[in-house]
Amino acid sequence: MPAHPVLIAGRWRPANATATFRAENPATREPLDEFPISAWGDCDEALSAAAEAFEQMRSLTGDQIAAFLEAYAGRIEARKDEIVKLANLETALPVSPRLADNELPRTTSQLRQAAAAARDGSWALPTIDAKQNIRSMYGPIGPVAVFGPNNFPLAFNSVSGGDFAAAIAAGNPVIAKANSSHPGTTRLLAEEALAAAQATKMPAAIVQLIYRTSHEDGERLVSDCRIGATGYTGSRSAGLKLKAAADQAGKLIYLELSSINPVVILPGALEERLDDIAGQFSTSCLMGTGQFCTNPGLIILLAGDSTEKFLESAVARFKAAPAGTLLSAGVAKSLSQGISALVRAGAHTLVGGKSTSEKGYSQANTLLRVSGQQFLEAPDALQTEAFGNASLVVVADDIDQAASVIDHLEGNLTGCVYSHTAGADDAAYDKIAPRLRPKVGRLLNDKMPTGVAVSPAMNHGGPYPATGHPGFTAVGIPASLRRFAVLHCYDNVRPHRLPAALRD
Amino acid sequence: MPAHPVLIAGRWRPANATATFRAENPATREPLDEFPISAWGDCDEALSAAAEAFEQMRSLTGDQIAAFLEAYAGRIEARKDEIVKLANLETALPVSPRLADNELPRTTSQLRQAAAAARDGSWALPTIDAKQNIRSMYGPIGPVAVFGPNNFPLAFNSVSGGDFAAAIAAGNPVIAKANSSHPGTTRLLAEEALAAAQATKMPAAIVQLIYRTSHEDGERLVSDCRIGATGYTGSRSAGLKLKAAADQAGKLIYLELSSINPVVILPGALEERLDDIAGQFSTSCLMGTGQFCTNPGLIILLAGDSTEKFLESAVARFKAAPAGTLLSAGVAKSLSQGISALVRAGAHTLVGGKSTSEKGYSQANTLLRVSGQQFLEAPDALQTEAFGNASLVVVADDIDQAASVIDHLEGNLTGCVYSHTAGADDAAYDKIAPRLRPKVGRLLNDKMPTGVAVSPAMNHGGPYPATGHPGFTAVGIPASLRRFAVLHCYDNVRPHRLPAALRD
Repeated sequence: MPAHPVLIAGRWRPANATATFRAENPATREPLDEFPISAWGDCDEALSAAAEAFEQMRSLTGDQIAAFLEAYAGRIEARKDEIVKLANLETALPVSPRLADNELPRTTSQLRQAAAAARDGSWALPTIDAKQNIRSMYGPIGPVAVFGPNNFPLAFNSVSGGDFAAAIAAGNPVIAKANSSHPGTTRLLAEEALAAAQATKMPAAIVQLIYRTSHEDGERLVSDCRIGATGYTGSRSAGLKLKAAADQAGKLIYLELSSINPVVILPGALEERLDDIAGQFSTSCLMGTGQFCTNPGLIILLAGDSTEKFLESAVARFKAAPAGTLLSAGVAKSLSQGISALVRAGAHTLVGGKSTSEKGYSQANTLLRVSGQQFLEAPDALQTEAFGNASLVVVADDIDQAASVIDHLEGNLTGCVYSHTAGADDAAYDKIAPRLRPKVGRLLNDKMPTGVAVSPAMNHGGPYPATGHPGFTAVGIPASLRRFAVLHCYDNVRPHRLPAALRD
Repeated sequence: MPAHPVLIAGRWRPANATATFRAENPATREPLDEFPISAWGDCDEALSAAAEAFEQMRSLTGDQIAAFLEAYAGRIEARKDEIVKLANLETALPVSPRLADNELPRTTSQLRQAAAAARDGSWALPTIDAKQNIRSMYGPIGPVAVFGPNNFPLAFNSVSGGDFAAAIAAGNPVIAKANSSHPGTTRLLAEEALAAAQATKMPAAIVQLIYRTSHEDGERLVSDCRIGATGYTGSRSAGLKLKAAADQAGKLIYLELSSINPVVILPGALEERLDDIAGQFSTSCLMGTGQFCTNPGLIILLAGDSTEKFLESAVARFKAAPAGTLLSAGVAKSLSQGISALVRAGAHTLVGGKSTSEKGYSQANTLLRVSGQQFLEAPDALQTEAFGNASLVVVADDIDQAASVIDHLEGNLTGCVYSHTAGADDAAYDKIAPRLRPKVGRLLNDKMPTGVAVSPAMNHGGPYPATGHPGFTAVGIPASLRRFAVLHCYDNVRPHRLPAALRD
């Protein structure tokens, strides 16, 4: 079977390929279908087609865009069984409940919420100064390139996830770059997106799909003059290269990079509900084999008997829980390297630390430990992200040392503090929270950070290097739409020439 | 008299200076006071003091910040005569009406509008999802470095202008880098800012002032880990160097760079009201000696008798109007170089083109001309900004060629179309406006772009390279505050720990 075609300008056609790659079943290491690595020519054609589609989209109403998103959501549901089956094959994420019952409904819900936002139009913040006859609102930015992550084959997929939904709802065509760990799933979704686009009379190139390019062509894509903006979720090293290219060209790129999501558990909370918290922690760490952007990768505790008991309980839970299958060979390798880097920096292995000998990609559930002093001596190395089912515990001597650990943290998506419910930890909380607040996008109390609700109040974002701009969120509608928008002011423009939302 | 002191950590003290520079009266070329060029040590101290002030500011209410801004506005008014006199001496901008009657009241009005926004708090877009107990709002980003431009010694001054007001109102301390063309004016303003801060019990380092640094130290400043963001308005070359440094460090920088503000005048408009438009155009071009970011630097007309008559009228007006004094030797030099670059690229001089022989810095009012064909052959060179009293006219063969000229434009702050009031130009408008819309932040009809109203609906921003991010405006409250803010989400945070605006 030849490599699958790419979707460019409304047509599935053979790629202008420099090479091919194979998807792989991470649970068995068996090769799956073959996909093309596109040469620049494919990107170039996609860019031109997207630019043309963008011109056509400018005359679409919010209702028309909404109809497309809703038709697409319906088509995903109609093909649900096939999609989740292939997603499971490519990622080893369980069909149920994960893919069929959680992620796919989340995906279609996001598409429908984005549709509602497009129909409603208030995301664009129309502002009318009738007295001076000056009016403004957000408008679409132009073709958006989306690089989706490996860990959500549906809900963050380049061609169906949050960035896709936000970019389309804001009025932009999308050039999707499939994640190489689930290209087949992405293909199925793109087929439905194209069919929905045709059924709702969208421009042919509203959605296009390429599978992979060289790094150089990726950098060229995000900095091309025809691109409006890029949404990227993935590894820090690749993301920073794309950022450098986009920045240099004056192009916007919204990045979601690494995050270790510090969780501080104060002594009163442990005295009050040690087992409960140990359970929450282990579940959050190991859920999805720890492959979440908001996985709690750094736990900060104060030295003492309760902490030792907590760690015993956590270790027992880590041992008892089956080690899940990792998403890909790449994830397995980088998790192993991350753990090694933490160990080299002085971390002691409480449990796990090694690859398991199963036939798929897997790593024993791993918990590492350092003292606060050790952390402060090597804060950079000890913030190495070990993406997967591994976390690092920092046991600080006292609350001041814990505060100092917080002061040394980079920007993160989330930060959490568990404290005594009757106020016994309040003084400690007041030392920790003000330091943690500026380091994270989402501050939690008494709740693990995994589980990113699609709420208008959500912020799935945070200070660099968690993301590239701390003023924007990747999850939460309508705010996520404004990443892919530009502010358009109309000064003394005649009434009939104004966008409908800006008329008196 | 020794060089003036810098304002660091609430104290006027001698700079840690590597050298000094003198302000200059551009109307006479006479040297004025001496100011220090700070070594890195001054920046370093200012950064540490600002970081400390930021911590203290986090507990201030909007009311308290508003009281500071209002006290400052009052103090500027109380010292008005001295301030406008020195601003006139340093910039040659007329005391009346420009400085005393327009710019100073605009400045104090901006400070008061920012105060009202701080007091009201709705700029922070508080969003409450009570059902899921997730809440979010914008919070301050941290110390803001402000590099103000040369052309508004009060209303865009680093220590009193729009960026200053927005940064403070959002809850951030400011490190002001004075523009070297009006350091004395900046000093007077900073004195009042400090006095107002003391009177309203603000942290000492809420406002700090240095006059100049090396380019390297400027780049270090905007990328320092203690900085939250930078606001820069000024030359493109210096701005892009700062952007590269900030981008590399993952720091935000809001830039306002060059803009030539295309104005398209359609044939019907000329037939209808040629003299009126020629008058508006000449006034807009020459006002403030053309030294506005929104100066109409590129006029696009269609070949024909009306256009020739329009140009005759404009030339007569350019000849008749006195050539104003330019802001500085630097502006005079770069204007002269800009005009030369345009001439080298094929522009024909209709009027002016040379420095005048007056004792101050001055350039004859200059109007240059190229054909549409010429423009399309050298679109980059013919978009060289000639900041000052010079504009380039492009006479296109027909509307299609005019549209093609628009297609070749870079991003600009503004774009304008004049058309027949009874619809004779509507078909032409419909060809031009959709192409111009994505190239500019503010689209105007029948109105010159100079004059940037401080309206909530204003967008003083636009696509790169006019600015660094097309989603933000530098003028217009409250939107301008959100440049200096980060999105803070609170997930399951206990009620008494929430910011007041997020409580039920």
